[in-house]
Amino acid sequence: MQAGHRREEVRAALIDAAERAITARGLGGLKAREIAQEVGCALGTIYTLFADLDELILEVNRRTLILFDAWIAGVPAPPDEADPVAELVRLARAYLAFARANPLRWRALFQHRLGEERTPPDWYVAEQGRLFHQIERPLRRLRPDLPDAERQLLARSLFSATHGLVSLGLDEKLTALDPVALDAQVETVVGAVARGLLTEQPQPGDGPA
Amino acid sequence: MQAGHRREEVRAALIDAAERAITARGLGGLKAREIAQEVGCALGTIYTLFADLDELILEVNRRTLILFDAWIAGVPAPPDEADPVAELVRLARAYLAFARANPLRWRALFQHRLGEERTPPDWYVAEQGRLFHQIERPLRRLRPDLPDAERQLLARSLFSATHGLVSLGLDEKLTALDPVALDAQVETVVGAVARGLLTEQPQPGDGPA
Repeated sequence: MQAGHRREEVRAALIDAAERAITARGLGGLKAREIAQEVGCALGTIYTLFADLDELILEVNRRTLILFDAWIAGVPAPPDEADPVAELVRLARAYLAFARANPLRWRALFQHRLGEERTPPDWYVAEQGRLFHQIERPLRRLRPDLPDAERQLLARSLFSATHGLVSLGLDEKLTALDPVALDAQVETVVGAVARGLLTEQPQPGDGPA
Repeated sequence: MQAGHRREEVRAALIDAAERAITARGLGGLKAREIAQEVGCALGTIYTLFADLDELILEVNRRTLILFDAWIAGVPAPPDEADPVAELVRLARAYLAFARANPLRWRALFQHRLGEERTPPDWYVAEQGRLFHQIERPLRRLRPDLPDAERQLLARSLFSATHGLVSLGLDEKLTALDPVALDAQVETVVGAVARGLLTEQPQPGDGPA
């Protein structure tokens, strides 16, 4: 038990150190040797406590996803909470604000790629799923007619579109915008998607002939 | 004149070689030494004919932008050419198809970053502008009421949102979709943005009170 306890402590300390490194210097600033040194363990210890460096990075990314989840909860709800268009815009703007506030650890979510044949572990996929679920909820109110599978796809697509707006808007010289303009664009485009989806909703009486 | 002519030939040969390298192996596969060897010039020649490797990469990226421009022209127009919603969807699907067909040189457009203080040269910005212009045209028909500056911003945002759909849809394990589903999602989301923008259009009679 003692050994197991100690193991868990070192494991957590390594994740803490990796989290600090990624937050301060980005994914490229994560060096296994430095992390081990900071925690005061041998370099090899990392590879006994984690399958590989990828697993350590995914643990940090999980924390980033949890942080974003908490961030969303802290953003005030729209005046009309029941309005799914306003809620979708709120989520998109929360994403933009989070990316702005946590640029390096946010980027690490996307820069990190597992090798060709590997898929992320179930616990990581589940954590991602919780975020997509935040988008599915207002989508269900917006378009109760959509089958679950279609709504799930659409939630991912809305996320991807928002990610494109945020990612190019913040980072690329291609489309870099001043902060106020970028906020307004996210609101305009995500609001338009939501209203556009509403126009597709079958009207009462549309049913099969 | 003779020397100038030869200079231009070597310069073009270097761009050709860099283009082949990026197309085959991506931006990371571009090695100045190999390019020089292929063309049969000294390594130093690259740096007399181009300000730096960045300029060589931008020349390849310019060709990629021109290739995409030609690609768009080759995609059949929607049945109702005058319908701006269908035209915006056509452009977005053309972008997806182009990214699929040219994955490495397409990625190079976004992977390549100039140093912090540098901005892309005017000729490159102009080439990007021509592409945004393709989006502005149907936007003008969709929303003739929008001021030019707002339409230009919106064209860039539509591009960014589409880029997010394409980029995460093709590449990330996060949201990777089968090709048919991804095509459908691009159509759904971009179509919804366009229809949503229409719902915002001031109606005749709305004018100032």
